[in-house]
Amino acid sequence: MKALKASKFFEIRFSEIDSMKVAWHGSYVLYLEDAREFWGAKYGLGYQDFMDNRYYAPIVEMDIRYKNPLFYGMKARIDIIYQPTISSKIVFDYEIYNTADESLIATAHTVQVFIDTNYELVLDNPDFYQEWKEKWSVL
Amino acid sequence: MKALKASKFFEIRFSEIDSMKVAWHGSYVLYLEDAREFWGAKYGLGYQDFMDNRYYAPIVEMDIRYKNPLFYGMKARIDIIYQPTISSKIVFDYEIYNTADESLIATAHTVQVFIDTNYELVLDNPDFYQEWKEKWSVL
Amino acid sequence: MKALKASKFFEIRFSEIDSMKVAWHGSYVLYLEDAREFWGAKYGLGYQDFMDNRYYAPIVEMDIRYKNPLFYGMKARIDIIYQPTISSKIVFDYEIYNTADESLIATAHTVQVFIDTNYELVLDNPDFYQEWKEKWSVL
Amino acid sequence: MKALKASKFFEIRFSEIDSMKVAWHGSYVLYLEDAREFWGAKYGLGYQDFMDNRYYAPIVEMDIRYKNPLFYGMKARIDIIYQPTISSKIVFDYEIYNTADESLIATAHTVQVFIDTNYELVLDNPDFYQEWKEKWSVL
Repeated sequence: MKALKASKFFEIRFSEIDSMKVAWHGSYVLYLEDAREFWGAKYGLGYQDFMDNRYYAPIVEMDIRYKNPLFYGMKARIDIIYQPTISSKIVFDYEIYNTADESLIATAHTVQVFIDTNYELVLDNPDFYQEWKEKWSVL
Repeated sequence: MKALKASKFFEIRFSEIDSMKVAWHGSYVLYLEDAREFWGAKYGLGYQDFMDNRYYAPIVEMDIRYKNPLFYGMKARIDIIYQPTISSKIVFDYEIYNTADESLIATAHTVQVFIDTNYELVLDNPDFYQEWKEKWSVL
Repeated sequence: MKALKASKFFEIRFSEIDSMKVAWHGSYVLYLEDAREFWGAKYGLGYQDFMDNRYYAPIVEMDIRYKNPLFYGMKARIDIIYQPTISSKIVFDYEIYNTADESLIATAHTVQVFIDTNYELVLDNPDFYQEWKEKWSVL
Repeated sequence: MKALKASKFFEIRFSEIDSMKVAWHGSYVLYLEDAREFWGAKYGLGYQDFMDNRYYAPIVEMDIRYKNPLFYGMKARIDIIYQPTISSKIVFDYEIYNTADESLIATAHTVQVFIDTNYELVLDNPDFYQEWKEKWSVL
């Protein structure tokens, strides 16, 4: 089974810098979200696909470990890897690197579930997700 | 005619502070929005009222003049005043003050129009807004 | 030993709402930060105290579990509890509740370390923190 | 005199979308800031240059006119043009376009002044800015 991975390069925005002159820890939530969108575009499983199928996939778990600060002007890369799971969830692991020296900046982990447009939890994989899993052999 | 005015007190959050150690200029957009919500709750014309009537009232003009910085820990007050207008718009003026010495921090001005849920501009006052104007004598 | 706990009430801001019409998961990072500021003001251990002593206390771990959505207009309460630890860290647990029915919205956990103004990790408790711990009997 | 202009392409992030399913009006502040950073990198007058010379260049005026909404997934371009002025200010005009059909999304205007690290207004052009103006013939 092929690992479904994507790597997105980004720079630290001025608005993301806090009074310690490093990227505010909350900015990393945006980096994770950008990574998911980038990954979703690559593998055909983005927010628009969820909406087209009338599902939402809200985050139910988000863990972030901050190892080293990101300073203004730094260039970084976020690697996102899909973690197959038997349950009706979407699980990602993330690693953020300073591309100047490949030092590890942070790791993260998110879990998403499916809900319908009435905000009711969906316990079985929606059809479009099951088909997507079969297509990519991540059963 | 009574001026429809509200005053909201707030403190500067850490996340709003930028690397100059003052409130980031983009944070003021939140202060304006909080002021509109506060005003809307006071006078019965908030986002929920728009939605209940199946209208949106997007911002089409936003002007902000920054006079003095807001430092972390400062206490501030935003005054918001409704400006009656003949056209199908909602116009507000704002003034932000440092409550410690009543020094002026910023002024702002916003204009909102009405659109329906198809994002089409509404040229005449929606009924619920016309009724609201009559109730408050701001024709 | 008394639990060092604080409870902050808040409302969901329009800007925090995403296209699912619920509070965006990243908004919770603000709720946690607001809770720490509120707690810090109550117990005398806020960002300003860190800065006055020439330390930063960056977040190195942040875990959030989302249980139920927060809709626009909801009123919520965040409980924050300081968790004493032997190591040179500041550890908090959080619980967010919908105050209308006391349903649990989310839980969270953060860990902060001390760094000096050169961004070097401080392995022993800074004096001001040790004194604070003694004062509050959280050794 | 050559117009000092730059054009930056960008996509609408999920976190920028509000409950009307369009880019929240406050997100445009980020687009303007990103444009200034992009322009600054191109013409050698970015935040880091200000800081290296021990100046800040805070925004004192920001005007935004919203013409058409930006939906999730849209691709956009922001054009930023430096407007030479005799006074000790940095003035930019902006235009945001939907690249799919070149429809105008928004226009904006910002003014920045120079302050020193004591937050005192600088009335004459700092030397590094005067030299920059001479180099680019924008006196």
